[in-house]
Amino acid sequence: MSSLRGMQQPELSKKLYKLIKTENHAIGAFESAGRETQSIANQLSEWGESTEDDAVSEVSDKLAVLLAEIADQEDMFAQNLEDSRGVLKQIRNTESSVQPSRNQKAKIQDEIQKLKYKEPESTKLPILEQELVRAEAQSLVAEAQLTNITRQKFKEAYDLRTAAIIERAEKQIILATQARRVLNLLDDTPIVPGEERQLFAGSSQAQNILNDAETALRGWSPSLEGVQMHSTGLGTNAMPASTTESLESPSSTTMVTAQKRIEERERAQEEGREEAVVAPSST
Amino acid sequence: MSSLRGMQQPELSKKLYKLIKTENHAIGAFESAGRETQSIANQLSEWGESTEDDAVSEVSDKLAVLLAEIADQEDMFAQNLEDSRGVLKQIRNTESSVQPSRNQKAKIQDEIQKLKYKEPESTKLPILEQELVRAEAQSLVAEAQLTNITRQKFKEAYDLRTAAIIERAEKQIILATQARRVLNLLDDTPIVPGEERQLFAGSSQAQNILNDAETALRGWSPSLEGVQMHSTGLGTNAMPASTTESLESPSSTTMVTAQKRIEERERAQEEGREEAVVAPSST
Repeated sequence: MSSLRGMQQPELSKKLYKLIKTENHAIGAFESAGRETQSIANQLSEWGESTEDDAVSEVSDKLAVLLAEIADQEDMFAQNLEDSRGVLKQIRNTESSVQPSRNQKAKIQDEIQKLKYKEPESTKLPILEQELVRAEAQSLVAEAQLTNITRQKFKEAYDLRTAAIIERAEKQIILATQARRVLNLLDDTPIVPGEERQLFAGSSQAQNILNDAETALRGWSPSLEGVQMHSTGLGTNAMPASTTESLESPSSTTMVTAQKRIEERERAQEEGREEAVVAPSST
Repeated sequence: MSSLRGMQQPELSKKLYKLIKTENHAIGAFESAGRETQSIANQLSEWGESTEDDAVSEVSDKLAVLLAEIADQEDMFAQNLEDSRGVLKQIRNTESSVQPSRNQKAKIQDEIQKLKYKEPESTKLPILEQELVRAEAQSLVAEAQLTNITRQKFKEAYDLRTAAIIERAEKQIILATQARRVLNLLDDTPIVPGEERQLFAGSSQAQNILNDAETALRGWSPSLEGVQMHSTGLGTNAMPASTTESLESPSSTTMVTAQKRIEERERAQEEGREEAVVAPSST
Protein backbone atom coordinates (compact mmCIF):
# COMPACT_ATOMS: atom_id res chain seq x y z
CA MET A 1 0.00 0.00 0.00
CA SER A 2 2.65 2.49 1.00
CA SER A 3 4.54 2.15 -2.26
CA LEU A 4 1.33 2.63 -4.23
CA ARG A 5 0.64 5.82 -2.36
CA GLY A 6 4.20 6.85 -3.20
CA MET A 7 3.38 6.41 -6.86
CA GLN A 8 0.52 8.86 -6.58
CA GLN A 9 2.89 11.66 -5.59
CA PRO A 10 3.62 14.23 -8.32
CA GLU A 11 6.92 13.49 -10.05
CA LEU A 12 8.50 16.60 -8.55
CA SER A 13 7.99 15.56 -4.92
CA LYS A 14 8.56 11.79 -5.26
CA LYS A 15 12.16 11.76 -4.11
CA LEU A 16 11.55 13.91 -1.08
CA TYR A 17 8.39 11.95 -0.29
CA LYS A 18 10.56 8.82 -0.11
CA LEU A 19 13.21 10.55 2.00
CA ILE A 20 10.60 11.77 4.48
CA LYS A 21 9.27 8.23 4.70
CA THR A 22 12.73 6.86 5.44
CA GLU A 23 13.21 9.59 8.06
CA ASN A 24 10.13 8.20 9.73
CA HIS A 25 11.70 4.74 9.88
CA ALA A 26 14.92 6.20 11.29
CA ILE A 27 12.96 8.08 13.95
CA GLY A 28 11.15 4.86 14.85
CA ALA A 29 14.49 3.09 15.21
CA PHE A 30 15.87 5.76 17.54
CA GLU A 31 12.67 5.71 19.59
CA SER A 32 12.99 1.97 19.90
CA ALA A 33 16.67 2.28 20.84
CA GLY A 34 15.67 4.74 23.56
CA ARG A 35 12.95 2.43 24.89
CA GLU A 36 15.24 -0.60 24.94
CA THR A 37 18.02 1.36 26.65
CA GLN A 38 15.48 2.44 29.25
CA SER A 39 14.58 -1.22 29.85
CA ILE A 40 18.27 -2.09 30.10
CA ALA A 41 18.67 0.56 32.80
CA ASN A 42 15.78 -0.89 34.82
CA GLN A 43 16.96 -4.46 34.39
CA LEU A 44 20.52 -3.52 35.30
CA SER A 45 19.36 -2.02 38.58
CA GLU A 46 17.21 -5.08 39.33
CA TRP A 47 20.04 -7.46 38.53
CA GLY A 48 22.44 -5.50 40.74
CA GLU A 49 20.02 -5.75 43.65
CA SER A 50 19.61 -9.49 43.12
CA THR A 51 23.37 -10.12 43.41
CA GLU A 52 23.12 -9.40 47.16
CA ASP A 53 26.48 -7.65 46.79
CA ASP A 54 26.08 -4.16 48.28
CA ALA A 55 28.76 -2.63 46.09
CA VAL A 56 27.45 -4.13 42.86
CA SER A 57 23.91 -3.23 43.88
CA GLU A 58 24.75 0.41 44.62
CA VAL A 59 27.03 0.93 41.63
CA SER A 60 24.63 -0.74 39.18
CA ASP A 61 21.74 1.30 40.52
CA LYS A 62 23.56 4.62 40.05
CA LEU A 63 24.84 3.49 36.67
CA ALA A 64 21.24 2.64 35.76
CA VAL A 65 20.14 6.18 36.63
CA LEU A 66 22.72 7.58 34.21
CA LEU A 67 21.83 5.00 31.57
CA ALA A 68 18.16 5.94 31.86
CA GLU A 69 19.15 9.55 31.25
CA ILE A 70 21.20 8.44 28.23
CA ALA A 71 18.06 6.66 27.00
CA ASP A 72 16.06 9.88 27.47
CA GLN A 73 18.55 11.67 25.26
CA GLU A 74 18.03 9.05 22.58
CA ASP A 75 14.30 9.71 22.75
CA MET A 76 14.76 13.46 22.70
CA PHE A 77 16.97 13.02 19.65
CA ALA A 78 14.14 11.16 17.91
CA GLN A 79 11.79 14.05 18.72
CA ASN A 80 14.25 16.56 17.27
CA LEU A 81 14.54 14.45 14.12
CA GLU A 82 10.76 14.63 13.89
CA ASP A 83 11.00 18.44 13.91
CA SER A 84 13.60 18.35 11.14
CA ARG A 85 11.36 15.97 9.19
CA GLY A 86 8.44 18.36 9.57
CA VAL A 87 10.47 21.11 7.90
CA LEU A 88 11.30 18.83 4.95
CA LYS A 89 7.58 18.28 4.49
CA GLN A 90 7.21 21.98 3.74
CA ILE A 91 9.56 21.59 0.78
CA ARG A 92 7.69 18.49 -0.38
CA ASN A 93 4.34 20.31 -0.17
CA THR A 94 5.69 23.20 -2.24
CA GLU A 95 7.09 20.74 -4.76
CA SER A 96 3.68 19.10 -5.05
CA SER A 97 1.91 22.40 -5.49
CA VAL A 98 4.35 23.60 -8.16
CA GLN A 99 3.86 20.52 -10.32
CA PRO A 100 0.50 21.63 -11.90
CA SER A 101 1.94 24.95 -13.09
CA ARG A 102 4.86 23.10 -14.70
CA ASN A 103 2.42 20.67 -16.33
CA GLN A 104 0.15 23.45 -17.53
CA LYS A 105 3.01 25.34 -19.16
CA ALA A 106 4.39 22.19 -20.80
CA LYS A 107 0.92 21.27 -22.07
CA ILE A 108 0.37 24.64 -23.74
CA GLN A 109 3.88 24.60 -25.21
CA ASP A 110 3.17 21.18 -26.60
CA GLU A 111 -0.15 22.24 -28.14
CA ILE A 112 1.50 25.26 -29.78
CA GLN A 113 4.25 23.09 -31.27
CA LYS A 114 1.77 20.60 -32.66
CA LEU A 115 -0.48 23.28 -34.09
CA LYS A 116 2.43 25.13 -35.69
CA TYR A 117 3.38 21.90 -37.44
CA LYS A 118 -0.08 20.80 -38.52
CA GLU A 119 -1.92 24.08 -39.01
CA PRO A 120 0.56 27.00 -38.88
CA GLU A 121 -2.07 29.55 -39.86
CA SER A 122 -4.61 28.53 -37.22
CA THR A 123 -6.34 31.38 -35.39
CA LYS A 124 -6.02 29.31 -32.25
CA LEU A 125 -2.28 30.00 -32.18
CA PRO A 126 -2.41 33.60 -30.91
CA ILE A 127 -4.86 32.52 -28.17
CA LEU A 128 -2.53 29.73 -27.12
CA GLU A 129 0.42 32.14 -27.13
CA GLN A 130 -1.55 34.39 -24.79
CA GLU A 131 -2.34 31.45 -22.57
CA LEU A 132 1.34 30.52 -22.57
CA VAL A 133 2.31 34.01 -21.39
CA ARG A 134 -0.09 33.62 -18.47
CA ALA A 135 1.15 30.11 -17.74
CA GLU A 136 4.77 31.24 -17.88
CA ALA A 137 4.05 34.09 -15.52
CA GLN A 138 2.48 31.67 -13.11
CA SER A 139 5.31 29.25 -13.58
CA LEU A 140 7.98 31.87 -12.97
CA VAL A 141 6.35 32.73 -9.66
CA ALA A 142 6.01 29.05 -8.78
CA GLU A 143 9.63 28.28 -9.60
CA ALA A 144 10.86 31.25 -7.57
CA GLN A 145 8.71 30.13 -4.67
CA LEU A 146 10.07 26.61 -5.03
CA THR A 147 13.74 27.63 -4.95
CA ASN A 148 13.12 30.05 -2.08
CA ILE A 149 11.31 27.47 0.03
CA THR A 150 13.68 24.66 -0.93
CA ARG A 151 16.84 26.49 0.06
CA GLN A 152 15.37 27.96 3.22
CA LYS A 153 13.75 24.80 4.49
CA PHE A 154 16.62 22.55 3.41
CA LYS A 155 19.00 24.61 5.52
CA GLU A 156 16.54 24.77 8.38
CA ALA A 157 15.88 21.03 8.35
CA TYR A 158 19.55 20.10 8.43
CA ASP A 159 20.36 22.85 10.89
CA LEU A 160 17.88 21.11 13.22
CA ARG A 161 19.18 17.65 12.40
CA THR A 162 22.85 18.41 12.94
CA ALA A 163 22.10 20.46 16.07
CA ALA A 164 20.16 17.45 17.39
CA ILE A 165 23.12 15.14 16.70
CA ILE A 166 25.45 17.50 18.56
CA GLU A 167 23.04 17.93 21.48
CA ARG A 168 22.58 14.19 21.96
CA ALA A 169 26.34 13.69 21.65
CA GLU A 170 27.34 16.39 24.13
CA LYS A 171 24.78 15.36 26.72
CA GLN A 172 25.61 11.67 26.39
CA ILE A 173 29.32 12.46 26.81
CA ILE A 174 28.49 14.19 30.10
CA LEU A 175 26.45 11.20 31.25
CA ALA A 176 28.83 8.48 30.06
CA THR A 177 31.81 10.24 31.62
CA GLN A 178 30.05 10.35 34.98
CA ALA A 179 29.00 6.73 34.51
CA ARG A 180 32.68 5.82 34.24
CA ARG A 181 33.36 7.60 37.53
CA VAL A 182 30.61 5.55 39.16
CA LEU A 183 32.14 2.34 37.74
CA ASN A 184 35.46 3.26 39.31
CA LEU A 185 33.83 3.11 42.75
CA LEU A 186 33.49 -0.65 42.39
CA ASP A 187 36.54 -2.51 43.69
CA ASP A 188 37.12 -5.52 41.48
CA THR A 189 40.13 -6.84 43.39
CA PRO A 190 39.58 -10.59 43.39
CA ILE A 191 39.06 -12.40 46.69
CA VAL A 192 39.95 -15.93 47.81
CA PRO A 193 37.29 -18.39 48.96
CA GLY A 194 35.90 -17.55 52.35
CA GLU A 195 37.27 -14.01 52.23
CA GLU A 196 34.63 -11.36 52.93
CA ARG A 197 34.20 -8.31 50.71
CA GLN A 198 34.71 -4.99 52.48
CA LEU A 199 31.60 -2.91 53.04
CA PHE A 200 30.89 -0.52 50.18
CA ALA A 201 32.06 2.93 51.18
CA GLY A 202 31.27 4.78 47.96
CA SER A 203 27.56 5.51 48.42
CA SER A 204 27.91 9.22 49.06
CA GLN A 205 30.50 9.56 46.31
CA ALA A 206 28.11 7.81 43.92
CA GLN A 207 25.36 10.24 44.89
CA ASN A 208 27.72 13.17 44.34
CA ILE A 209 28.53 11.90 40.87
CA LEU A 210 24.82 11.77 40.03
CA ASN A 211 24.47 15.31 41.32
CA ASP A 212 27.43 16.41 39.19
CA ALA A 213 25.82 14.83 36.14
CA GLU A 214 22.53 16.55 36.84
CA THR A 215 24.21 19.93 37.31
CA ALA A 216 26.25 19.55 34.13
CA LEU A 217 23.18 18.49 32.17
CA ARG A 218 21.12 21.38 33.48
CA GLY A 219 23.95 23.80 32.68
CA TRP A 220 24.30 22.51 29.13
CA SER A 221 23.65 24.95 26.32
CA PRO A 222 24.35 24.63 22.60
CA SER A 223 27.80 25.90 21.63
CA LEU A 224 27.63 25.02 17.95
CA GLU A 225 28.49 27.17 14.98
CA GLY A 226 25.27 28.74 13.71
CA VAL A 227 23.80 28.03 10.31
CA GLN A 228 23.42 31.50 8.77
CA MET A 229 19.98 32.21 7.37
CA HIS A 230 19.45 34.93 4.76
CA SER A 231 15.81 34.21 4.07
CA THR A 232 14.32 35.35 7.34
CA GLY A 233 12.21 37.91 5.49
CA LEU A 234 10.57 35.26 3.34
CA GLY A 235 6.84 36.04 3.27
CA THR A 236 4.04 33.49 3.38
CA ASN A 237 3.95 33.81 -0.42
CA ALA A 238 7.53 32.47 -0.45
CA MET A 239 8.82 35.71 -1.97
CA PRO A 240 11.35 38.17 -0.56
CA ALA A 241 9.59 40.52 1.88
CA SER A 242 10.38 43.58 -0.30
CA THR A 243 8.48 42.15 -3.28
CA THR A 244 5.48 41.05 -1.28
CA GLU A 245 3.32 44.00 -2.26
CA SER A 246 3.99 43.92 -5.98
CA LEU A 247 3.14 40.22 -5.99
CA GLU A 248 -0.31 40.62 -4.50
CA SER A 249 -1.23 41.48 -8.10
CA PRO A 250 1.40 39.68 -10.16
CA SER A 251 1.66 42.06 -13.08
CA SER A 252 4.49 44.39 -14.10
CA THR A 253 7.89 42.77 -13.67
CA THR A 254 6.66 39.23 -13.86
CA MET A 255 4.66 39.71 -16.99
CA VAL A 256 7.41 41.71 -18.61
CA THR A 257 9.89 38.93 -17.89
CA ALA A 258 7.49 36.31 -19.18
CA GLN A 259 6.83 38.30 -22.35
CA LYS A 260 10.56 38.68 -22.91
CA ARG A 261 11.00 34.94 -22.70
CA ILE A 262 8.28 34.33 -25.26
CA GLU A 263 9.96 36.74 -27.65
CA GLU A 264 13.31 35.08 -27.15
CA ARG A 265 11.81 31.71 -27.87
CA GLU A 266 10.17 32.98 -31.04
CA ARG A 267 13.44 34.46 -32.21
CA ALA A 268 15.12 31.12 -31.62
CA GLN A 269 12.43 29.38 -33.62
CA GLU A 270 12.85 31.71 -36.53
CA GLU A 271 16.57 31.12 -36.56
CA GLY A 272 16.26 27.35 -36.60
CA ARG A 273 12.71 26.47 -37.47
CA GLU A 274 13.33 22.78 -38.15
CA GLU A 275 14.48 21.87 -34.63
CA ALA A 276 12.04 24.21 -32.97
CA VAL A 277 9.11 22.57 -34.67
CA VAL A 278 10.19 19.00 -33.92
CA ALA A 279 11.37 19.43 -30.33
CA PRO A 280 9.29 21.36 -27.77
CA SER A 281 10.91 24.61 -26.71
CA SER A 282 13.38 24.11 -23.92
CA THR A 283 13.39 27.67 -22.58
CA MET B 1 8.91 -19.33 22.84
CA SER B 2 11.57 -16.91 23.98
CA SER B 3 9.92 -16.31 27.32
CA LEU B 4 9.64 -20.06 27.91
CA ARG B 5 13.34 -20.44 27.29
CA GLY B 6 13.91 -17.65 29.78
CA MET B 7 12.02 -19.70 32.37
CA GLN B 8 14.47 -22.53 31.94
CA GLN B 9 17.39 -20.39 33.11
CA PRO B 10 18.67 -21.08 36.64
CA GLU B 11 17.20 -18.62 39.14
CA LEU B 12 20.60 -17.01 39.69
CA SER B 13 21.11 -15.98 36.05
CA LYS B 14 17.51 -15.11 35.13
CA LYS B 15 17.80 -11.36 35.58
CA LEU B 16 21.01 -11.07 33.61
CA TYR B 17 19.63 -13.41 30.95
CA LYS B 18 16.76 -10.95 30.48
CA LEU B 19 19.10 -7.95 30.42
CA ILE B 20 21.29 -9.58 27.77
CA LYS B 21 18.18 -10.23 25.69
CA THR B 22 17.11 -6.61 25.94
CA GLU B 23 20.64 -5.54 24.98
CA ASN B 24 20.13 -7.55 21.83
CA HIS B 25 16.96 -5.60 21.02
CA ALA B 26 18.75 -2.31 21.65
CA ILE B 27 21.61 -3.36 19.37
CA GLY B 28 19.08 -4.25 16.69
CA ALA B 29 17.47 -0.83 17.04
CA PHE B 30 20.80 0.97 16.64
CA GLU B 31 21.69 -1.18 13.64
CA SER B 32 18.36 -0.31 12.09
CA ALA B 33 18.89 3.39 12.89
CA GLY B 34 22.26 3.18 11.14
CA ARG B 35 20.76 1.51 8.07
CA GLU B 36 17.92 4.02 7.81
CA THR B 37 20.29 6.95 8.22
CA GLN B 38 22.42 5.47 5.44
CA SER B 39 19.32 5.35 3.21
CA ILE B 40 18.49 8.92 4.14
CA ALA B 41 21.99 9.98 3.04
CA ASN B 42 21.56 8.28 -0.35
CA GLN B 43 18.06 9.67 -0.86
CA LEU B 44 19.17 13.15 0.15
CA SER B 45 21.88 13.12 -2.49
CA GLU B 46 19.43 11.84 -5.13
CA TRP B 47 16.85 14.43 -4.21
CA GLY B 48 19.44 17.21 -4.38
CA GLU B 49 20.43 16.13 -7.87
CA SER B 50 16.80 16.04 -8.99
CA THR B 51 16.21 19.67 -7.97
CA GLU B 52 18.38 20.76 -10.94
CA ASP B 53 19.71 23.49 -8.64
CA ASP B 54 23.51 23.23 -8.73
CA ALA B 55 23.97 24.67 -5.27
CA VAL B 56 21.35 22.44 -3.63
CA SER B 57 22.71 19.47 -5.57
CA GLU B 58 26.30 20.05 -4.48
CA VAL B 59 25.52 20.94 -0.86
CA SER B 60 23.11 18.03 -0.40
CA ASP B 61 25.61 15.63 -1.92
CA LYS B 62 28.41 16.68 0.44
CA LEU B 63 26.00 16.73 3.36
CA ALA B 64 24.98 13.20 2.38
CA VAL B 65 28.60 12.05 2.54
CA LEU B 66 28.84 13.32 6.12
CA LEU B 67 25.45 11.85 7.00
CA ALA B 68 26.56 8.46 5.65
CA GLU B 69 29.60 8.68 7.91
CA ILE B 70 27.32 9.55 10.84
CA ALA B 71 25.29 6.43 9.95
CA ASP B 72 28.51 4.37 9.98
CA GLN B 73 29.19 5.58 13.50
CA GLU B 74 25.73 4.43 14.53
CA ASP B 75 26.53 1.01 13.15
CA MET B 76 29.95 0.91 14.82
CA PHE B 77 28.23 1.84 18.07
CA ALA B 78 25.94 -1.17 17.70
CA GLN B 79 29.00 -3.39 17.18
CA ASN B 80 30.64 -2.01 20.32
CA LEU B 81 27.44 -2.66 22.28
CA GLU B 82 27.65 -6.24 21.04
CA ASP B 83 31.14 -6.50 22.57
CA SER B 84 29.86 -5.14 25.87
CA ARG B 85 27.00 -7.64 25.72
CA GLY B 86 29.45 -10.49 25.15
CA VAL B 87 31.22 -9.59 28.40
CA LEU B 88 27.93 -9.66 30.33
CA LYS B 89 27.36 -13.18 29.04
CA GLN B 90 30.46 -14.29 30.92
CA ILE B 91 28.84 -13.18 34.19
CA ARG B 92 25.62 -14.93 33.24
CA ASN B 93 27.47 -18.16 32.44
CA THR B 94 29.26 -18.08 35.79
CA GLU B 95 25.95 -17.43 37.54
CA SER B 96 24.43 -20.44 35.80
CA SER B 97 27.35 -22.67 36.73
CA VAL B 98 27.31 -21.57 40.39
CA GLN B 99 23.65 -22.44 40.85
CA PRO B 100 24.14 -26.25 41.29
CA SER B 101 26.66 -25.83 44.13
CA ARG B 102 24.24 -23.49 45.91
CA ASN B 103 21.43 -25.99 45.41
CA GLN B 104 23.58 -28.87 46.60
CA LYS B 105 24.58 -27.07 49.80
CA ALA B 106 20.99 -25.99 50.52
CA LYS B 107 19.74 -29.53 49.90
CA ILE B 108 22.18 -31.09 52.40
CA GLN B 109 21.46 -28.39 54.97
CA ASP B 110 17.79 -29.09 54.55
CA GLU B 111 18.24 -32.85 55.00
CA ILE B 112 20.30 -32.30 58.16
CA GLN B 113 17.65 -30.02 59.66
CA LYS B 114 14.85 -32.48 58.93
CA LEU B 115 16.81 -35.43 60.29
CA LYS B 116 17.79 -33.55 63.49
CA TYR B 117 14.11 -32.86 64.09
CA LYS B 118 12.73 -36.31 63.24
CA GLU B 119 15.59 -38.61 64.20
CA PRO B 120 18.25 -36.69 66.17
CA GLU B 121 20.31 -39.81 66.95
CA SER B 122 20.47 -41.09 63.33
CA THR B 123 23.88 -42.39 62.21
CA LYS B 124 23.21 -40.68 58.88
CA LEU B 125 23.80 -37.30 60.51
CA PRO B 126 27.61 -37.45 60.76
CA ILE B 127 27.78 -38.57 57.11
CA LEU B 128 25.58 -35.65 56.05
CA GLU B 129 27.73 -33.27 58.10
CA GLN B 130 30.77 -34.54 56.20
CA GLU B 131 28.97 -34.05 52.92
CA LEU B 132 28.04 -30.55 53.99
CA VAL B 133 31.69 -29.69 54.68
CA ARG B 134 32.54 -30.78 51.15
CA ALA B 135 29.58 -28.90 49.68
CA GLU B 136 30.46 -25.77 51.64
CA ALA B 137 34.05 -25.94 50.43
CA GLN B 138 32.81 -26.16 46.85
CA SER B 139 30.30 -23.42 47.44
CA LEU B 140 32.88 -21.08 48.97
CA VAL B 141 35.02 -21.46 45.86
CA ALA B 142 32.00 -20.98 43.62
CA GLU B 143 30.84 -17.84 45.45
CA ALA B 144 34.36 -16.35 45.35
CA GLN B 145 34.54 -17.10 41.64
CA LEU B 146 31.12 -15.52 41.16
CA THR B 147 31.96 -12.26 42.92
CA ASN B 148 35.35 -12.06 41.19
CA ILE B 149 33.89 -12.61 37.73
CA THR B 150 30.85 -10.43 38.43
CA ARG B 151 32.79 -7.39 39.52
CA GLN B 152 35.47 -7.74 36.87
CA LYS B 153 33.12 -8.35 33.95
CA PHE B 154 30.54 -5.83 35.14
CA LYS B 155 33.19 -3.12 35.10
CA GLU B 156 34.55 -4.34 31.78
CA ALA B 157 31.13 -4.46 30.12
CA TYR B 158 30.18 -0.94 31.16
CA ASP B 159 33.66 0.37 30.46
CA LEU B 160 33.08 -0.79 26.88
CA ARG B 161 29.52 0.54 26.77
CA THR B 162 30.32 4.01 28.07
CA ALA B 163 33.47 4.23 25.92
CA ALA B 164 31.30 3.34 22.90
CA ILE B 165 28.81 6.09 23.77
CA ILE B 166 31.62 8.62 24.05
CA GLU B 167 33.27 7.46 20.81
CA ARG B 168 30.05 7.72 18.81
CA ALA B 169 29.34 11.11 20.37
CA GLU B 170 32.77 12.62 19.73
CA LYS B 171 32.93 11.37 16.14
CA GLN B 172 29.39 12.49 15.36
CA ILE B 173 30.15 15.94 16.79
CA ILE B 174 33.07 16.20 14.35
CA LEU B 175 30.86 15.16 11.45
CA ALA B 176 27.81 17.23 12.36
CA THR B 177 29.94 20.33 12.92
CA GLN B 178 31.44 19.98 9.45
CA ALA B 179 27.96 19.31 8.05
CA ARG B 180 26.89 22.70 9.39
CA ARG B 181 29.81 24.33 7.60
CA VAL B 182 28.65 22.68 4.36
CA LEU B 183 25.11 23.97 4.95
CA ASN B 184 26.46 27.49 5.31
CA LEU B 185 27.73 27.32 1.73
CA LEU B 186 24.14 27.36 0.48
CA ASP B 187 22.85 30.87 -0.11
CA ASP B 188 19.19 30.95 0.85
CA THR B 189 18.63 34.60 -0.05
CA PRO B 190 15.20 34.59 -1.68
CA ILE B 191 14.85 35.59 -5.33
CA VAL B 192 12.04 37.29 -7.24
CA PRO B 193 10.31 35.60 -10.20
CA GLY B 194 12.51 35.46 -13.28
CA GLU B 195 15.65 36.25 -11.30
CA GLU B 196 18.46 33.77 -11.92
CA ARG B 197 20.41 32.13 -9.09
CA GLN B 198 24.12 32.84 -9.12
CA LEU B 199 26.38 29.95 -10.04
CA PHE B 200 27.44 27.89 -7.04
CA ALA B 201 30.99 28.92 -6.10
CA GLY B 202 31.43 26.75 -3.04
CA SER B 203 32.42 23.42 -4.63
CA SER B 204 36.06 23.50 -3.64
CA GLN B 205 35.18 24.78 -0.16
CA ALA B 206 32.72 21.91 0.23
CA GLN B 207 35.42 19.45 -0.75
CA ASN B 208 37.83 21.02 1.74
CA ILE B 209 35.26 20.62 4.50
CA LEU B 210 34.92 16.92 3.67
CA ASN B 211 38.71 16.62 3.80
CA ASP B 212 38.76 18.38 7.18
CA ALA B 213 36.16 15.97 8.49
CA GLU B 214 38.14 12.99 7.23
CA THR B 215 41.36 14.27 8.79
CA ALA B 216 39.67 14.98 12.12
CA LEU B 217 38.04 11.57 12.13
CA ARG B 218 41.27 9.80 11.32
CA GLY B 219 43.08 11.76 14.02
CA TRP B 220 40.47 10.91 16.64
CA SER B 221 41.60 8.95 19.65
CA PRO B 222 39.81 8.24 22.92
CA SER B 223 40.47 10.85 25.59
CA LEU B 224 38.21 9.42 28.27
CA GLU B 225 38.97 8.81 31.89
CA GLY B 226 40.01 5.19 32.28
CA VAL B 227 38.06 2.64 34.28
CA GLN B 228 40.63 1.28 36.73
CA MET B 229 40.84 -2.51 36.82
CA HIS B 230 42.32 -4.31 39.83
CA SER B 231 41.51 -7.82 38.68
CA THR B 232 43.92 -8.09 35.79
CA GLY B 233 45.61 -11.07 37.48
CA LEU B 234 42.37 -13.03 37.62
CA GLY B 235 43.17 -16.59 36.51
CA THR B 236 40.98 -18.80 34.35
CA ASN B 237 39.77 -20.35 37.61
CA ALA B 238 38.38 -16.90 38.55
CA MET B 239 40.69 -16.67 41.55
CA PRO B 240 43.42 -14.12 42.29
CA ALA B 241 46.61 -15.11 40.45
CA SER B 242 48.53 -15.60 43.71
CA THR B 243 46.14 -18.30 44.91
CA THR B 244 46.02 -20.15 41.63
CA GLU B 245 48.42 -22.90 42.68
CA SER B 246 46.84 -23.71 46.01
CA LEU B 247 43.46 -23.97 44.28
CA GLU B 248 44.53 -26.59 41.79
CA SER B 249 43.90 -28.96 44.70
CA PRO B 250 41.37 -27.10 46.83
CA SER B 251 42.48 -28.30 50.25
CA SER B 252 44.22 -26.40 53.06
CA THR B 253 42.83 -22.87 53.40
CA THR B 254 39.51 -23.53 51.76
CA MET B 255 38.75 -26.60 53.80
CA VAL B 256 39.93 -24.94 56.99
CA THR B 257 37.62 -22.02 56.33
CA ALA B 258 34.76 -24.35 55.54
CA GLN B 259 35.37 -26.40 58.67
CA LYS B 260 35.47 -23.21 60.77
CA ARG B 261 32.08 -22.20 59.39
CA ILE B 262 30.58 -25.57 60.25
CA GLU B 263 31.85 -25.23 63.78
CA GLU B 264 30.47 -21.71 64.09
CA ARG B 265 27.12 -22.91 62.91
CA GLU B 266 27.11 -25.77 65.39
CA ARG B 267 27.96 -23.37 68.19
CA ALA B 268 25.09 -21.15 67.15
CA GLN B 269 22.76 -24.12 67.12
CA GLU B 270 23.78 -25.14 70.60
CA GLU B 271 23.15 -21.63 71.88
CA GLY B 272 19.68 -21.37 70.36
CA ARG B 273 18.61 -24.87 69.36
CA GLU B 274 14.93 -24.06 68.77
CA GLU B 275 15.48 -21.58 65.94
CA ALA B 276 18.30 -23.58 64.46
CA VAL B 277 16.11 -26.66 64.17
CA VAL B 278 13.13 -24.87 62.70
CA ALA B 279 14.90 -22.57 60.25
CA PRO B 280 17.67 -23.80 57.96
CA SER B 281 21.06 -22.38 58.91
CA SER B 282 21.62 -18.99 57.40
CA THR B 283 25.44 -18.93 57.55
